[in-house]
Amino acid sequence: MPGVHAVITGDDFPVPETKIIELGEAGYVDMQDISDNCIAKGKVFYDGHVVAALAAETPHIAIEAARLIDVEYQLLPPVMTVKEAMAENATVIHETFTPGAFLARTRKVLPNAGGLTLAIGDVVKGFKECDVIIDRVFNTETVHQGYIESHVTTVTWNAEGLIEIYTSTQGQFAIRDQVAGILNIPIGKIRVIPLEIGGGFGGKDAAYLDPLAAVLSKRTGRPVRMSMRRDEVLRATGPSSGTQIRVKIGATKDGRLVAADLECAYEAGAFPGGPVGPAIMVATNRYRIPHQKIVGYDVLVNKPKIKPYRAPGAIPVNFAVETVMDELARELGLDPLEFRMMNAMATGDRMVSGLPCGKFDGKGLLEAMRKHPHYTAPKAAGTVGRGAAYAFYMHIGMQSDARVMVNTDGTVQLCTGSCDLSGTRLSLAMQLAEVFGIDVDRISASVGATDAIGYTFTSCGSRTTFATGLAVIKAGEMVLAAMRSRAALLWKVDPATIAFTDGRFHHNENEQLTMSFQELCSKLSETGGTISMSATVSPSDIGIQVAGHIVDVSVDTATGKVQLLRHTAFQDVGKAVHPGLVSGQMQGATAQGLGWALSEEYFYDHTGKLRNATLLDYRMPTALDLPMIEAVILETPNPAHPFGVRGAGEISIVPPVAAVANAIYDAVGVRPRSLPMKPSRLLDLMRSRDRH
Amino acid sequence: MPGVHAVITGDDFPVPETKIIELGEAGYVDMQDISDNCIAKGKVFYDGHVVAALAAETPHIAIEAARLIDVEYQLLPPVMTVKEAMAENATVIHETFTPGAFLARTRKVLPNAGGLTLAIGDVVKGFKECDVIIDRVFNTETVHQGYIESHVTTVTWNAEGLIEIYTSTQGQFAIRDQVAGILNIPIGKIRVIPLEIGGGFGGKDAAYLDPLAAVLSKRTGRPVRMSMRRDEVLRATGPSSGTQIRVKIGATKDGRLVAADLECAYEAGAFPGGPVGPAIMVATNRYRIPHQKIVGYDVLVNKPKIKPYRAPGAIPVNFAVETVMDELARELGLDPLEFRMMNAMATGDRMVSGLPCGKFDGKGLLEAMRKHPHYTAPKAAGTVGRGAAYAFYMHIGMQSDARVMVNTDGTVQLCTGSCDLSGTRLSLAMQLAEVFGIDVDRISASVGATDAIGYTFTSCGSRTTFATGLAVIKAGEMVLAAMRSRAALLWKVDPATIAFTDGRFHHNENEQLTMSFQELCSKLSETGGTISMSATVSPSDIGIQVAGHIVDVSVDTATGKVQLLRHTAFQDVGKAVHPGLVSGQMQGATAQGLGWALSEEYFYDHTGKLRNATLLDYRMPTALDLPMIEAVILETPNPAHPFGVRGAGEISIVPPVAAVANAIYDAVGVRPRSLPMKPSRLLDLMRSRDRH
Repeated sequence: MPGVHAVITGDDFPVPETKIIELGEAGYVDMQDISDNCIAKGKVFYDGHVVAALAAETPHIAIEAARLIDVEYQLLPPVMTVKEAMAENATVIHETFTPGAFLARTRKVLPNAGGLTLAIGDVVKGFKECDVIIDRVFNTETVHQGYIESHVTTVTWNAEGLIEIYTSTQGQFAIRDQVAGILNIPIGKIRVIPLEIGGGFGGKDAAYLDPLAAVLSKRTGRPVRMSMRRDEVLRATGPSSGTQIRVKIGATKDGRLVAADLECAYEAGAFPGGPVGPAIMVATNRYRIPHQKIVGYDVLVNKPKIKPYRAPGAIPVNFAVETVMDELARELGLDPLEFRMMNAMATGDRMVSGLPCGKFDGKGLLEAMRKHPHYTAPKAAGTVGRGAAYAFYMHIGMQSDARVMVNTDGTVQLCTGSCDLSGTRLSLAMQLAEVFGIDVDRISASVGATDAIGYTFTSCGSRTTFATGLAVIKAGEMVLAAMRSRAALLWKVDPATIAFTDGRFHHNENEQLTMSFQELCSKLSETGGTISMSATVSPSDIGIQVAGHIVDVSVDTATGKVQLLRHTAFQDVGKAVHPGLVSGQMQGATAQGLGWALSEEYFYDHTGKLRNATLLDYRMPTALDLPMIEAVILETPNPAHPFGVRGAGEISIVPPVAAVANAIYDAVGVRPRSLPMKPSRLLDLMRSRDRH
Repeated sequence: MPGVHAVITGDDFPVPETKIIELGEAGYVDMQDISDNCIAKGKVFYDGHVVAALAAETPHIAIEAARLIDVEYQLLPPVMTVKEAMAENATVIHETFTPGAFLARTRKVLPNAGGLTLAIGDVVKGFKECDVIIDRVFNTETVHQGYIESHVTTVTWNAEGLIEIYTSTQGQFAIRDQVAGILNIPIGKIRVIPLEIGGGFGGKDAAYLDPLAAVLSKRTGRPVRMSMRRDEVLRATGPSSGTQIRVKIGATKDGRLVAADLECAYEAGAFPGGPVGPAIMVATNRYRIPHQKIVGYDVLVNKPKIKPYRAPGAIPVNFAVETVMDELARELGLDPLEFRMMNAMATGDRMVSGLPCGKFDGKGLLEAMRKHPHYTAPKAAGTVGRGAAYAFYMHIGMQSDARVMVNTDGTVQLCTGSCDLSGTRLSLAMQLAEVFGIDVDRISASVGATDAIGYTFTSCGSRTTFATGLAVIKAGEMVLAAMRSRAALLWKVDPATIAFTDGRFHHNENEQLTMSFQELCSKLSETGGTISMSATVSPSDIGIQVAGHIVDVSVDTATGKVQLLRHTAFQDVGKAVHPGLVSGQMQGATAQGLGWALSEEYFYDHTGKLRNATLLDYRMPTALDLPMIEAVILETPNPAHPFGVRGAGEISIVPPVAAVANAIYDAVGVRPRSLPMKPSRLLDLMRSRDRH
């Protein structure tokens, strides 16, 4: 067709030479899977899976031309739920797996699932000690991160073989390494410039369009820009897992938790590697339970390859466990928060992984919840209920790099490798301002391209303010050391005699010798030039996030519609560098959690086609659906960070689901065990209750 | 006019708070002057001086709208030559000067000129010892660098007060600091991203359009792109000085130079700060002359503010001195190169500045010239002449910053702050490849924006491969030190026992323990992450450039047209990192020097209007005008650089003018003392000779 410059298919992509990129505590990337996910090679795994890509003069020509592509499909029966996928006679989705993939490493006899077990104590013996046992099954649906900006990339593969990628991403280095791996290109030949990002939440560190645009650029000899429509984002990028979770927890009659037995089946989508690993790690990991067995299944289904979504894996299992905890408390006649406090894990307790737990203050958080006016206030009149839930998550460390440059006018440039999803340029600049004793307005913070700043892991896992903050502080301290030498030069004294306190350099003994940070900046040119330092960190000590939420709901018994009346989110952030941004993170995460709770879900039909790939039909909460979310910030310093910072970006998404479920029970006496808790489902539950 | 979004004049610009930016050996920038040069404030100083700027929807609307601007000029008599400007009754161009400017610091009683004198010995006494004295006056015209890419910038002043500038420049930090100074903006609020540059030669480190586009962007709230047409480049950017130079040199009859007395008047253009300083430093600074007095004048004229042009200042005075040297040699009956060798300055000799001269080998270069087949070959038949000239220049040091990052696949990213005018990304990558013992193809080199890389002085003064090379080597050595620690970790040995030679890490004693650079790269992730180091240098030891050229010309006695027959350029570059790029620099510089010699000049009419502001009328040499230029590279290591590198970018522009002038004398017996040596001028000289 005139105006079309290139058309490519899976045949235009090589077999990756690098099989696996290991990412330490952040998992791994299977290069063949990610290549196959970018463009199908013979087999199409889900509705939205790319079969061809083309480059044309204009978007309009491209759309017309794409319609002219004929694909001959051989229809296979789709496998759409973990239950179907794990059935013995299930259609096998992948005949083979790349060695090293999670599923292959842990593969069970099940046709589409790999399993992983964590256990402590003796769970059979444990349940024998229990006076009360609750055993329930929960189901949740596939949901999407719902970032408002769609995926977009512009790639130039130039005549010298250098590939330049302008893309919206959480991790410029992740995109670089994935494109390098998919196309078998040396890493150094790729330059990724991260664009300002309109939301990611874990969904924007995988290559989707970038390798396609790269190959199209090579073919056409031109820059190629690609962007997704909204329906393409929902169909073809990585949402979070639908799940089926069985939770059995037992306690003694005096309220002591004794045993827990969980089976957590999480969708992986069309390729292995869903969030079941972190899910089982944190499933019960806030309570002391001596006997536990937790099995996780990573389950292939004919849906897009699952991506992390804010506190990956935690939400479904927290919904399940915190609902059972509420049920247990009521069975035992205990206040639900009191019951949680009685069993709360504390610093140093042995976790289900067998390791001792790091420093945190879960009891303090539960205590703050119990004393808060929201928890002690009388409920409003009507079919109103109050619920609470409690959650635990670990943030990650990983490598970060920061560059600090001081200018002669006392302003400072800060460049890091961390894409700014949530205002982290500011929270990083504030840490540097603290080191320098200057106003943060004097610091300009930016995000570096892969050729200008050192390797920095993706902005995810609540790591940026914490880990990149450490790199910033280290680089800042290197600058101060160099500036002390300059002051020493000016004052003709030994640098060791110069201290820096309260934003001033001064001599240990001679009070006359004192200079502000800014004054010394103005003398850098004459003492050897301006100062520029870079620092890399890879913290192994990280930190724990805890959060607890209280919610009041009113349930319309005629329609099943849940109205949120009041919501209070408690979170321990270690140190709130910028309290406004932290509150924003807590409120945004809570809003997303409430979307999981009440309205969000993927609808697939029996042919495996997604039927609600628009934001009208895929129903995220709007401002009209939500009350003002009160954010209560607690600060238990993280010993792994000089200012006590803990990762703060994720955990507040976790408690809303169970808190709402528990509040619904409190209001109308039914326990939703499937998400979302939409009107039709509640109406069914209430009718079923009324029939009994 | 519809479509016009903003119109600005000089009234929209503040009085700069920073008066002077000092640049060490590279001079200074007067902020008020540079602001006034960007846009006139009440007084228009030259044809091309901006009086207003506007932003419109399209370039066409902008051009139409600009025509609608009415300016009421009060006509003043223009001052167009140094002779006019220095006359006692001359029109005064500037009533006042900013304190600190060169002209103000050194102001004489002359109306438009400041003076500076260098002297050693006793020049009156010296001339008394001389047997032969030659005393001549030379004139040269204003010429332009002639970069093919015109000036272009795109500026966004965003709502947060951050200014982002994409501009074609030799120095992203220079533009940043100038825009900051002109607009009174903190340095940290400005980010300059240097674009790929299409030639600079000293003319692209001044702000012209950038501050205008910034103010227009602030007014319109949009990105503003501005570019110059060719005639605007010639009219309004900084060419090199027209000059008048008197040279009086005396020698004994046995060929020993004794005394020199020079007066060098260089145009500064409309604002102080032409290249007369370096001009007088290098005027005679390659010969031992015990008694010298050299006076330089920085002279205001109604032309654009002069900018550096490759070996700033050296060309006119070299033309004058080397012509006189040729005349002296012939007068004394000596071979011109023999005469120069007899008087050549050597390492450690006292320069006219009073300081001892650094390490170089001028005699070796002259010896190489004398022995070269070009010098010993018989001349072609006809009115053919052979000439030679010799030149000396110092390259600069200044601050440079480099970042080196190694990837897990053994590829390396190198980022520096040096804009690449001539292939320096490659010459820098090659130095790093040498440090790492790897192939240069494994290294990707890039140029950083001002927010990502440490302060680096402009790419000028032949400094980049030398000074930024030092920063690259230092950062590379820091990376190797860190890699030794990683090898030590893997081998469980003391890092001090590990050496790195021939591209391999190996244990001092245990021969089994050995690993290539690339092998160790693949183990970085597991030993603490990839490595990234940055280094800043401000070398105080720099280096000397010397060059000598031999040219054969044929003069058409009927038309005065000079045909270049053969040209050989000799230059000592210390160490040719990339011989092909070095030859290219020598050939390009020579071509420009030949343009000065034969055809380039600004024509101003009596009203001060430039009459040849096109590349048809401003006549640069083309491929048809030039012979193949043979580049002879000599390598006397520079002790200030571990590989011996000397700056190589400038000096070969200097000797061609005098070499051609001396060849013309050799061919037809007339001595041109004005540039360019165009047919009409030679014809006049030959006719005048024939009349006598």
